[in-house]
This record gives sequence, structure tokens and C-alpha cells, in this order.
Amino acid sequence: MILEVADIRIPPGKNAEFEAAIGQGLATVLPRAKGFIAHKVQRGIDSPERYILLIWWQALENHTVDFRQGPLFAEWRSFIGPFLAVPPHVEHFELALESGWPR
Amino acid sequence: MILEVADIRIPPGKNAEFEAAIGQGLATVLPRAKGFIAHKVQRGIDSPERYILLIWWQALENHTVDFRQGPLFAEWRSFIGPFLAVPPHVEHFELALESGWPR
Repeated sequence: MILEVADIRIPPGKNAEFEAAIGQGLATVLPRAKGFIAHKVQRGIDSPERYILLIWWQALENHTVDFRQGPLFAEWRSFIGPFLAVPPHVEHFELALESGWPR
Repeated sequence: MILEVADIRIPPGKNAEFEAAIGQGLATVLPRAKGFIAHKVQRGIDSPERYILLIWWQALENHTVDFRQGPLFAEWRSFIGPFLAVPPHVEHFELALESGWPR
């Protein structure tokens, strides 16, 4: 399992519209993506125009190849594209240490 | 519950030493911090010198006031300080949307 971390900046004041749009994209597109496990959308407290999208994938290639180079990517971007103030910065991570999930 | 996201850069080749040090800090200091819930240390795949530290706190002030301005902070920094290539970038987030935890 790997973690995609996408750093997203939206225009000021568009939070409600962005959250509705990304929610629709996550609900309708991601469940059809090969290797998709789970997601969280985190809204910035210090920077209200910043969001961190966390997506867990079974393997790196499920995101970098299957999703990004497949037919679902354009569909996904149609939801969030209009709200991207700058291109999102996306990197991938593997779990090094943990205390278990929050309960 | 809020999420602290710390973006950490270490010097090249110091991964094993850094993970041992932050692991010790997380095991010995964080459980004594008021409002600490859980943590994950994510190692960069695209950028091997990059780590994302995720810490869930009960309230924002548990990190910004109780921890950062309290006696545990110097103790915590004694573990990870020697490995910080640049000052970590730290911001706080609240949960906007989720699909549940990975299973």
C-alpha cells in the first residue's frame, strides 16, 4: 500500500464549491480505479485555500500508470480542474513508522 | 480531531538514522503530549530525502500551545533536530471528506 499526497491550492472563497466537486469526483470516479483503497480530503486551517488530498493505492503503478494514463484521469480532472489555482504538487510515500490509526 | 502535516527534508543517505531517531522521539515523547492521538511517518518514494509526518491531535491548541510552548518540545527536537536539512514546514488541517480508513 502506498500513499499519494496531493497538495492543492484553490482560489479564495471557493471552498464549498470545491468540496462539492471533489466529493463528486471521489465518489464517482475513484471507486472505479484499479488499486484504489481509500481517500481523505483535509482542509487547511492555517491556509484556508490549501487542501491535502490523501489517497491510498495498492501499488505505485495503480496511480502513476493505470490511473494517470488511463481513461479515468480526464473524468477526474473535469471535476477538480476548474478549482486548481496552480497545478497540484503530487508525490508518493510509503509507510515508515506508525502508531496505528486514530480511534 | 485535527491533523498536523509536517514536511521534513533530511540530508541524503541519513534515512535509517533519521527513522531510528524519530521513532524513538515518537515512542518516548509524543505519548506524554496532551491531546496526542496517533501518528504516521511516511517516507518519500519520489523524493527519498522527504518525509511527511502526520500527527492527529484532539485540538489545534494541543499542538500549537501545549506541545510547542511546553517542556516536551525541546525533548522532541533533540531527537529529530540533527536530521533537519531545512526547517520543517508544518500546517494543520481538518477533515473535509473521507471514505473511511484503509482496510
